[in-house]
Amino acid sequence: MPARIARLLVSSSDRPGIVAAVSGFLFRHGANITDLQQHSTDPSGGRFFMRLEFDASGIALSPEELAQAFAREVAAPFGMDWRIAYADEVKKTAILVSKADHALLELLWRWRRGELPTEITLVIGNHPDLAPYAREFGVPFYHVPVGEGGMPEAEARMLELLEGRADLVVLARYMRILSEHFVSRFPNRIINIHHSFLPAFAGARPYHQAYRRGVKIIGATAHYVTPELDAGPIIEQDVVRVSHRDEVKDLIEKGRDLERQVLARAVKWHLEDRILVYENKTVVFV
Amino acid sequence: MPARIARLLVSSSDRPGIVAAVSGFLFRHGANITDLQQHSTDPSGGRFFMRLEFDASGIALSPEELAQAFAREVAAPFGMDWRIAYADEVKKTAILVSKADHALLELLWRWRRGELPTEITLVIGNHPDLAPYAREFGVPFYHVPVGEGGMPEAEARMLELLEGRADLVVLARYMRILSEHFVSRFPNRIINIHHSFLPAFAGARPYHQAYRRGVKIIGATAHYVTPELDAGPIIEQDVVRVSHRDEVKDLIEKGRDLERQVLARAVKWHLEDRILVYENKTVVFV
Amino acid sequence: MPARIARLLVSSSDRPGIVAAVSGFLFRHGANITDLQQHSTDPSGGRFFMRLEFDASGIALSPEELAQAFAREVAAPFGMDWRIAYADEVKKTAILVSKADHALLELLWRWRRGELPTEITLVIGNHPDLAPYAREFGVPFYHVPVGEGGMPEAEARMLELLEGRADLVVLARYMRILSEHFVSRFPNRIINIHHSFLPAFAGARPYHQAYRRGVKIIGATAHYVTPELDAGPIIEQDVVRVSHRDEVKDLIEKGRDLERQVLARAVKWHLEDRILVYENKTVVFV
Amino acid sequence: MPARIARLLVSSSDRPGIVAAVSGFLFRHGANITDLQQHSTDPSGGRFFMRLEFDASGIALSPEELAQAFAREVAAPFGMDWRIAYADEVKKTAILVSKADHALLELLWRWRRGELPTEITLVIGNHPDLAPYAREFGVPFYHVPVGEGGMPEAEARMLELLEGRADLVVLARYMRILSEHFVSRFPNRIINIHHSFLPAFAGARPYHQAYRRGVKIIGATAHYVTPELDAGPIIEQDVVRVSHRDEVKDLIEKGRDLERQVLARAVKWHLEDRILVYENKTVVFV
Repeated sequence: MPARIARLLVSSSDRPGIVAAVSGFLFRHGANITDLQQHSTDPSGGRFFMRLEFDASGIALSPEELAQAFAREVAAPFGMDWRIAYADEVKKTAILVSKADHALLELLWRWRRGELPTEITLVIGNHPDLAPYAREFGVPFYHVPVGEGGMPEAEARMLELLEGRADLVVLARYMRILSEHFVSRFPNRIINIHHSFLPAFAGARPYHQAYRRGVKIIGATAHYVTPELDAGPIIEQDVVRVSHRDEVKDLIEKGRDLERQVLARAVKWHLEDRILVYENKTVVFV
Repeated sequence: MPARIARLLVSSSDRPGIVAAVSGFLFRHGANITDLQQHSTDPSGGRFFMRLEFDASGIALSPEELAQAFAREVAAPFGMDWRIAYADEVKKTAILVSKADHALLELLWRWRRGELPTEITLVIGNHPDLAPYAREFGVPFYHVPVGEGGMPEAEARMLELLEGRADLVVLARYMRILSEHFVSRFPNRIINIHHSFLPAFAGARPYHQAYRRGVKIIGATAHYVTPELDAGPIIEQDVVRVSHRDEVKDLIEKGRDLERQVLARAVKWHLEDRILVYENKTVVFV
Repeated sequence: MPARIARLLVSSSDRPGIVAAVSGFLFRHGANITDLQQHSTDPSGGRFFMRLEFDASGIALSPEELAQAFAREVAAPFGMDWRIAYADEVKKTAILVSKADHALLELLWRWRRGELPTEITLVIGNHPDLAPYAREFGVPFYHVPVGEGGMPEAEARMLELLEGRADLVVLARYMRILSEHFVSRFPNRIINIHHSFLPAFAGARPYHQAYRRGVKIIGATAHYVTPELDAGPIIEQDVVRVSHRDEVKDLIEKGRDLERQVLARAVKWHLEDRILVYENKTVVFV
Repeated sequence: MPARIARLLVSSSDRPGIVAAVSGFLFRHGANITDLQQHSTDPSGGRFFMRLEFDASGIALSPEELAQAFAREVAAPFGMDWRIAYADEVKKTAILVSKADHALLELLWRWRRGELPTEITLVIGNHPDLAPYAREFGVPFYHVPVGEGGMPEAEARMLELLEGRADLVVLARYMRILSEHFVSRFPNRIINIHHSFLPAFAGARPYHQAYRRGVKIIGATAHYVTPELDAGPIIEQDVVRVSHRDEVKDLIEKGRDLERQVLARAVKWHLEDRILVYENKTVVFV
């Protein structure tokens, strides 16, 4: 029988016996654990996080029955937050863009090459410039300009388009600020790439800020979007060395490479259910 | 009751139920798992590795009784290789040196500052130069030159000195090749720092080799020593960028910093029981 | 008057007065030096390298006259190797590929957005797979399989196609070994990307070799092609950390990102006349 | 005749002929340029920076005569800021500390092995803890506590101690804020190591700030001290990756290694006259 990969994510108050209870449950039901990662913020009184990957092909129960049994036998007694995701139930991803093409193209390429386990359902741009690129890859492109109705109208239109088509929304250098209303529709499911090493140079034109400050290293940050701008949980960061020889345009060019890499990693980890959020931080099990 | 930290390391053929069996055993005996890392080379027919850190203060059995129970109830049925180490039973470390001081000093400093959980019992040098440094830190220094009797005689003398005083032997730029006889006395318990990015530039004068080849990055490698020179399991590596402006002396200077960092990390991981060896490779749970 | 950027590259035996002679010459003829980098392997008896960027718009002489004057007044007395390149005389680049698309696409994409100052004149593949990608970017694709006539026939066909169309040949994961005959036609003008941290893992299947050796860091290397396989002057290298969790397929995926970045940098530096070769090594003025 | 290494640093408005004038001057007087680096912020209307290393052993003029001739013949016509430093006139370095030993020991150790071309004249601590370490290296230690007289009194005492003994002042984790009065005595001659990736986490307890924000990379920054706290020209930065597994104490431990490396590099570059400051930024010629 071919393997059916499933992932169980758990977070709860830390107390003795969690690993035994979860692994015992899976073993009794015929699951084979193939990967397990665990983290405790503090063994006494801290928070417990765990990600298990298991082969579900030998489980007699249906996914619904398994979930119900887990909820009753394990999750309830321990007061767990949890979810089970099956690798063959691929998430749907929508991408929002403006004019810059690099982050979008990076995602589309990796997706075509099989590196991102998702279905990219649509691309929305507040400018029409990137429509040809989306279409090259067979992905519908929608132009949703911010017109007289402003962002409320544009967001309403986008929410219509996203309805049922987005388990994940990626802001691939989308240069507009989304409202709390919009963001609240996708809690911990909107990933943004910020072109600085947050929290340094939050806000607009970070490369210009970095140039003025004379830093010797620049960075990029992928984070979940929260209502507070550039302050959501950080998923991944990376950096590159710069020098006095680099002008703003060089920072932008070097930064583009970072943004592509950092965003692609964050999106991949999200799609593989590797990220847990707590206290505005992330646990990333890689 | 204060915590008593213990670490269980397991490797075995992979099969369903290992995590449940181990975690169930620990839970039944009153241990609280505080950290768990697991790795499978292949879920079907591969090799399974696990490191658990647990608080043993609530266990009623003595360490010997716990070990016997584990052997009988868990390890035997699954055919496991395993060991339990207690953090308060600190390992003894011996350091072998020649003339270069940087690797030795780095270890002594970190040890004094509490970063290395060990007792440094002695330093042996085939030259006397570093005796003052060892003594500054209150560590006995023994000069074991390679004289007329050659390495066999020197090794015999070193084995005498190491008897009962070395759970770990660190070659901190010791510039002599140890015999298979010597090495076999400390299987996976001799750590060497090689001043190149192995397997590139194995053997003598790696910085000169690197300079001639014109590489743009140099590295350092910490590995367990096996009878085959520079071919043992790699524990850790790191690199630094160089350019045409760097002469051999600059490579040596930049490399020294790498060697210090890489060796210190490898030694620390060994002392914290984070390393498992298989097929001439390492699993490092950090 | 708009600037006309020119670059003068010089190498010679080192002796006093070179900088004064070259900069004095340029000043007398109305050039304004905007960037200057210099390197000496050894001030007494070593080799001297220099790259000057200057604005040639104020020079009264024609490029030919300037070259003749420089040869006579400066280069001959000092016994220099030298060349002057004008930024507006863009080099022609040909790309050779097999089946892997990532290195090709990276180059095409950067080229389209203006990061690579070149004209990409053609793509040649020994397999037809990448034809659609080349054409998407408006670049002619030629399928030159290695058939019954073997590499000699294929190389002859490629040399025909390249005639007059290639100042630079990039091997973007072209999986065939080129003959000394072919290579000698483009001395220091063929750039290859090797998917390892050379000189480690030269030859075939480097990621498999790296996996077996258990290294903790993998790399990629861009180098000029010489008749000796994987032994030409290294232009650029970069690395990424791996662990026991990474299987061969993960090394390949991580390595792809490295290859793209490293090759793109090397090609850009070549196109901007930043590289000088001596003793099978490179001086890269960045 | 043995070489006598000198370094000429120049900054001025950019205009044609500077390189020719400077290199021509040195050539006429018998100096042999062994290294030259140059940078222009903008060829038209920008700022020009240059560092030349030359062998002064063949110069007939005395250093004073050479300086006067340069001032008259070259610097005045071009309106240059400039200085000539001779490698054999080693700078005097004073180090200020509090309780943390790592930055101090790193400097002392590198100094002892000849990596830092300086004379370390004294160590001042606002706590007495590090006195033994300084004395181990034969360096006088002065305890200058911040007592009832507060910082003004302590600073006055330190200025007395530093009089004639400090071309460079290094704050090796000195945990007090220096007044504008004190700082103005050593313009661009006080180097501080800040334990964060500035401008992120300026101010107190940066590792705690970093932990709370959940960053995935931490850094350290060496900068010249200006009256505005943590806002002076950045000389060097470096970073290290962290994860959810790292607690504050792990950030501190990882950060210590960064601080040592980054501070040592900045101090070395200063001592080798590689740093020019303009607009609160640095040009570092390495």
